[in-house]
Amino acid sequence: MPIKTLNVNQHILNANDVLAENLRSRFDQSGVFVMNLMSSPGAGKTSVILRIIEALAGKFNIGVIEGDIASDVDAQKIQKTNVDVVQINTDGACHLDANMIRSAAETLGLDGKQFVIIENVGNLVCPAEFKLGENIKVMILSVAEGHDKPLKYPLMFTESDALIVNKTDLIPYTDFSLEELKATVQAMNPKINIFEISAKTGDGVSQLTGWIENKIVGK
Amino acid sequence: MPIKTLNVNQHILNANDVLAENLRSRFDQSGVFVMNLMSSPGAGKTSVILRIIEALAGKFNIGVIEGDIASDVDAQKIQKTNVDVVQINTDGACHLDANMIRSAAETLGLDGKQFVIIENVGNLVCPAEFKLGENIKVMILSVAEGHDKPLKYPLMFTESDALIVNKTDLIPYTDFSLEELKATVQAMNPKINIFEISAKTGDGVSQLTGWIENKIVGK
Repeated sequence: MPIKTLNVNQHILNANDVLAENLRSRFDQSGVFVMNLMSSPGAGKTSVILRIIEALAGKFNIGVIEGDIASDVDAQKIQKTNVDVVQINTDGACHLDANMIRSAAETLGLDGKQFVIIENVGNLVCPAEFKLGENIKVMILSVAEGHDKPLKYPLMFTESDALIVNKTDLIPYTDFSLEELKATVQAMNPKINIFEISAKTGDGVSQLTGWIENKIVGK
Repeated sequence: MPIKTLNVNQHILNANDVLAENLRSRFDQSGVFVMNLMSSPGAGKTSVILRIIEALAGKFNIGVIEGDIASDVDAQKIQKTNVDVVQINTDGACHLDANMIRSAAETLGLDGKQFVIIENVGNLVCPAEFKLGENIKVMILSVAEGHDKPLKYPLMFTESDALIVNKTDLIPYTDFSLEELKATVQAMNPKINIFEISAKTGDGVSQLTGWIENKIVGK
């Protein structure tokens, strides 16, 4: 008996694609640029968002949609920056979908916003399959996860516009090879932008936020 | 509109439970003890399995079932130890299910085996929902993921018989608090066994493998 994928997946994805397209039109009409940020648990999504807010909140009106299975610990961290934030609790679901974002965007309010960051549920697999009406998909891989992850979780690396390699401050204490990671990822996705940062120390953050700023302005 | 969970989930889970129960009987009849090992990507599942094999392969006939979305890099590492290994590629699915394990166990062959380790797909969410006919569920959290993960991904911490805190060699370079992690996890799951190890240096591994050995013998 061959290994098989549950075929309900495709029906769910088709319905999501339609909702995501509607959502994208709505974001465009409101003049909002939307980034879908994805990674494994603990790769540093919230820390990276805090760095982006620090760099760009003086230039743009930013909103954040936080996705978690449970809890609002991340939303609380964002709230301290005075940026508007809405928390989605998926109650078990391992990714955000367009329908969740539709309702979160209404609660957040798009009027006057120029940049909305969506922090997806920590998961290197399913979030890559669900479009959220975003303009760009950005993913984070932390140094501690290892440089072999693109081969094992290929879809997110193939779908993303940018890869943030986070926790570069840990490189001396691991056998992580940036060269090997880059070679693998660029072979899978030649157009991907790769940023090497440490959200902890701030190293490399300005290249990332500069790239995002150009994307927002150039929309 | 409230946030909702896709309700196909429950139907899939019910079907899986029936298959998992049959599978468990099959394992029992063959005298095989089965461990389902789960974690985020890069937390160290394969490295921990290699340490377990190192400690227990002289005492038991071990088999390994490797689950990955794609690739067989992990199975190749296991094969070098001369332990029987079967690779499942889920082709996109973010967790193993009982049906996949049924077919992998046939390919692996249960005759004469005493201990089968299942390495689940790297994902801190969905694998916790799918029973695989296992005797024990064990999860790994790596120090680099942060001590706040139990609140955000509660199900796996609640379902697991043991939590392996891996990469303790990185603690000096992070703000990870073992005390905070343990307090949170023990409040959620008072019966859980917690092992602090570094698969890299070997620290703490013997406590873990001793516990597993007792489980196999005491079955």
